[in-house]
Amino acid sequence: MEITSVNNEQVKDVVKLQQKKYRDIENKFLLEGFKAIDEAFRAGLDIEKVFVISGKENEYLFLKDKLISATEPVLKKISTTDSAPDAVAVAFKKHYEKANFTSANRVVLLENIKDLGNLGTILRTSTAFGVDGIVLYGDCADIYNPKCVRASVGNLWKIPVIYFKDFKDLEFFKDYQRVATLPKAKSYLKNFKANEKCLVMFGSEADGLSDELIKFSTDSVKIEMAPNVESLNLSAACAVVLYQIFV
Amino acid sequence: MEITSVNNEQVKDVVKLQQKKYRDIENKFLLEGFKAIDEAFRAGLDIEKVFVISGKENEYLFLKDKLISATEPVLKKISTTDSAPDAVAVAFKKHYEKANFTSANRVVLLENIKDLGNLGTILRTSTAFGVDGIVLYGDCADIYNPKCVRASVGNLWKIPVIYFKDFKDLEFFKDYQRVATLPKAKSYLKNFKANEKCLVMFGSEADGLSDELIKFSTDSVKIEMAPNVESLNLSAACAVVLYQIFV
Repeated sequence: MEITSVNNEQVKDVVKLQQKKYRDIENKFLLEGFKAIDEAFRAGLDIEKVFVISGKENEYLFLKDKLISATEPVLKKISTTDSAPDAVAVAFKKHYEKANFTSANRVVLLENIKDLGNLGTILRTSTAFGVDGIVLYGDCADIYNPKCVRASVGNLWKIPVIYFKDFKDLEFFKDYQRVATLPKAKSYLKNFKANEKCLVMFGSEADGLSDELIKFSTDSVKIEMAPNVESLNLSAACAVVLYQIFV
Repeated sequence: MEITSVNNEQVKDVVKLQQKKYRDIENKFLLEGFKAIDEAFRAGLDIEKVFVISGKENEYLFLKDKLISATEPVLKKISTTDSAPDAVAVAFKKHYEKANFTSANRVVLLENIKDLGNLGTILRTSTAFGVDGIVLYGDCADIYNPKCVRASVGNLWKIPVIYFKDFKDLEFFKDYQRVATLPKAKSYLKNFKANEKCLVMFGSEADGLSDELIKFSTDSVKIEMAPNVESLNLSAACAVVLYQIFV
């Protein structure tokens, strides 16, 4: 059976997952396109169902009993991209807690990061450079936002990610070397040596790290740059710092 | 005098600059918001006129005789962002040619780059890390596209950028060390040493470098990464490579 109506109840339910509120209530999120779905499947993510454009079902046989055929207008309705992908899957979020960080030596902390492209890119880069976990501190965007899912290119669920709202949660890192990345830091990145347990902290591009986190840091580093450039893009800066420290 | 109508002829002319075709014909482009305009002015860029929202003219007195007061709907019409900035300026493009590259030792080549965010970010990072010039090879996006201008955050005009369409143009770099960045390169980035004259080449995220450019290279490098991550975001990869090689 093929879903042909954008007003189908199942379709309406899935469209709701474009909003954070419903992703939180349902504990689910959207995966758009073959690559994202395939990567999630191979990584063992729990996939509930997949809407596939009629005629392309053969490409998704690995999800056999979860396939739902649909027309192009239905896929356009469900997806968040300008051109509808061949398939959109509904997957269950992965949940992490403090316990997942007990053996994490290399941790990245991001404070008040709202830019979804940067957030997804940083997840991707952190995974590539051997980071053990990510803390989203303060008021950060939802990693399950479709734009962040896309920017992570399949690296959303490979390492634990946790949201910490309160400063007292950071007590967890009291035995870590805590590195503030700051334009006015004491030391240059090239001269920095990381301890075994190391928390690297980044603020947002607009505001940088809060005074609270700067006070909490044990070290600070800055990236060597031409004097006529004020700053770097956040995900570019993260990439450079994590590569230099951890690789 | 204040422009209040979105159908004003001057407004219509400026709106055309949102399209590459007209930017090419007029040799002009748009700068949106105080920061972009201020940076361009301080960098000595030739600014033709500035549309400023009525009441904020005082903040743009450095452009005195070029100010045009306008209403919010007019600025919304001219600008390419969701929320209209306080001001939009029309500036003249900077033109570079091969002669601007004669003393360029450190050159970045980008092949077939279409992503405007990546392109702007790479211009910003390249300037920060001491690159002397950028070659956009093949079918690359227009750096004067408003999205790229934004992503460059004032680093669009600090180093020469040139478009090369044909392979024979690359003859210019025959005496350079020519480094292909490839996932399957022979050497790891950490082991690479750059010569004085060094051209670093990047392909697009989807297609990588063409066979033609791989054949043209004298060296190749890859970034050390976790085996379960397929690739990095292009601007993150550029940042890491340029920092490691040139800083």
